[in-house]
Amino acid sequence: MTISRGPQAFPRSEYLRRLDLVKSDMVQRNIETLVVSNQHDITYLTGYTALSSYVPQALVVSTYEEEPTFILRRMDAPAAIHQCFMERDKIIAYPEALIGNPEMDGYDAAIHYLNDSTTGSLGIGIDQYNLSTATMEKFRTRLPNARIQDCTKAVTWIRGVKSDLEIEIMREAAAISDAAILRAAEVIRPGVREADAAAEIAATLIRGANGKSGTGIQGISLCSSPRTGTCHISWSEDVFRHGSQVNLEIGGSRHGYCAGLMRTYSIGTPSDRLRRVHEIELAGLEAALESVRPGATCSDVANAFDRAIEREGLKKESRCGYAHGIGWTEPTASLKDGDYTELKPNMTFHLMLGNWIDEDFGYALSETIRVTESGVEVLTTAPRKIFEI
Amino acid sequence: MTISRGPQAFPRSEYLRRLDLVKSDMVQRNIETLVVSNQHDITYLTGYTALSSYVPQALVVSTYEEEPTFILRRMDAPAAIHQCFMERDKIIAYPEALIGNPEMDGYDAAIHYLNDSTTGSLGIGIDQYNLSTATMEKFRTRLPNARIQDCTKAVTWIRGVKSDLEIEIMREAAAISDAAILRAAEVIRPGVREADAAAEIAATLIRGANGKSGTGIQGISLCSSPRTGTCHISWSEDVFRHGSQVNLEIGGSRHGYCAGLMRTYSIGTPSDRLRRVHEIELAGLEAALESVRPGATCSDVANAFDRAIEREGLKKESRCGYAHGIGWTEPTASLKDGDYTELKPNMTFHLMLGNWIDEDFGYALSETIRVTESGVEVLTTAPRKIFEI
Repeated sequence: MTISRGPQAFPRSEYLRRLDLVKSDMVQRNIETLVVSNQHDITYLTGYTALSSYVPQALVVSTYEEEPTFILRRMDAPAAIHQCFMERDKIIAYPEALIGNPEMDGYDAAIHYLNDSTTGSLGIGIDQYNLSTATMEKFRTRLPNARIQDCTKAVTWIRGVKSDLEIEIMREAAAISDAAILRAAEVIRPGVREADAAAEIAATLIRGANGKSGTGIQGISLCSSPRTGTCHISWSEDVFRHGSQVNLEIGGSRHGYCAGLMRTYSIGTPSDRLRRVHEIELAGLEAALESVRPGATCSDVANAFDRAIEREGLKKESRCGYAHGIGWTEPTASLKDGDYTELKPNMTFHLMLGNWIDEDFGYALSETIRVTESGVEVLTTAPRKIFEI
Repeated sequence: MTISRGPQAFPRSEYLRRLDLVKSDMVQRNIETLVVSNQHDITYLTGYTALSSYVPQALVVSTYEEEPTFILRRMDAPAAIHQCFMERDKIIAYPEALIGNPEMDGYDAAIHYLNDSTTGSLGIGIDQYNLSTATMEKFRTRLPNARIQDCTKAVTWIRGVKSDLEIEIMREAAAISDAAILRAAEVIRPGVREADAAAEIAATLIRGANGKSGTGIQGISLCSSPRTGTCHISWSEDVFRHGSQVNLEIGGSRHGYCAGLMRTYSIGTPSDRLRRVHEIELAGLEAALESVRPGATCSDVANAFDRAIEREGLKKESRCGYAHGIGWTEPTASLKDGDYTELKPNMTFHLMLGNWIDEDFGYALSETIRVTESGVEVLTTAPRKIFEI
């Protein structure tokens, strides 16, 4: 009648280590309780990856308790018991009556829990990143004795520095990304429907690599001529054609972690323009990689890239990367001029050199990288070339 | 150097019809301007489906203008020009400097546009559903002369009633869902890795049906023994086993529209308990379908289902469905006791009879349905059986 804990991606000690980091941060912020609502932060602190964040759910971290408490919809509680590292009494299921209910929702259940525990009158930090004005108003009104503090992205910043165990999982995801990029080179053919190629790419992302399957699926961007100036659209309903270019962005997924990877394909000989852009971007990639080391800043990496390509007459308006790990983009550090976030060992980034130069012409190249003790490790290993079909 | 408009899922007249509905609603609310930030509402009003909503973007509808104005990130503007029905001067690209910038973001660009147009001093409705407290504060502070009104879910409610053209697209999505459910019955086999089956299911969802490919990919829930009491998790890293049960939830996707579908599979003869639950749920499904007609309420449908299964000794705690169309769940009407939303022709629902009875035992059955002029049409057509492997 009960569900048991399933295989865990990380040992208990790893979650306790992460929680210690969060609790130290809480002490510095002078709060005893932290309410985490971002699904990727919840994955980081518990192991939970079920697709249930379309309804309210909240993880409550207390400096007085070793394990956090997860308040979520009754329907999803068995998945939480199965996936989370905590004991089952830390999973609190709120009733289905709070779903599709204009008067009350799952955040009311979280507030009820906070009022019921001793924490209702203490300092409560809340990550407001995903919370509407109405929800925040509810927290303030119904916790009148609490000192409520804005802790937006507090956990997101902490998870920016990975452990070696997390890096290992990201390596597994990166191997899957590599496999999908290589598979794309086999299935992109003139006359083939773009959807049929996308189907094979998606299947590869799920089948995985080295005996490790993908454990989820990220969006796939497949932007072919005349759409190579776009970056976030799916495959079209058309077939691939002779002379077309294809920009592909994919990411393998392991236990919530992903590893983004972009490559450009050319059906037939690439144009001189495309080849030239590729050479310049490759030089920019090398310059960016050489600049990555602990103590350098995100801005340093962006400047190294920008200088290298601008020397050759190319510009890229968008940032050249961002913090990357659980759930694709981590909304914290950006590899852009003026972002003085200091690089630390085991920070991971999607070094994203996609360059949408004209409305109808763009180019895709990226790697998932890790800051090491002395420099950089590139986790993705697919050939850095234009794949000629 | 420019990108042209691509193939459109709907004619211009269809978007203008939708906008007329929104503008009529705006007149009733006494506002001249509406700021829409929900990505699925933007899809409804423009045709845009690119995966860019992880950064701010806003669609501004004005009662003074035929076409809405779409303010989005520069990187994504070519996709908007390609996909949206509007003329290109209605696409306003904000600079990449607003990305990863702690001081200003894309909503500042939207506010700048509102202040620049004549609407800054009029009534402005804002859908706050996805907006943080900080963003709403920005709208209030930087538009001091505007009467700001909460219009949360205003467009979402309007798009609850589909046009015949939208129903046609949902039929295409439903056919893809059917194909994936049947494909699952071919690939779920003892000894096969769950991931390999999931890969084939995902590939089918993308390849599509009847010559119409899937145009995106929705999450796949594949909950096998001992996880049939969970509902929103992915496949496991294990292989299927003799005697196992598999609950599957998938949805074909066409131009942003999806059609949810759930079925249960049994590797070997289903247990007596599973067969009994299936028979009761089938009776509940028929009772629910018989109760669907214009003028009935969501509550009536839920009560018909609940009474039918409770007569046989079964209960289902969660709602038995929800409004369904663009982007899976529409956060408006629920098929639950006490939801007195009146059914109207061409409303569409995911009639979701998944029932997670014990922590370690659940059952999956659903259909995507449409309210007709006199009753109901079931858009999904996969056999309503336990698929025995």
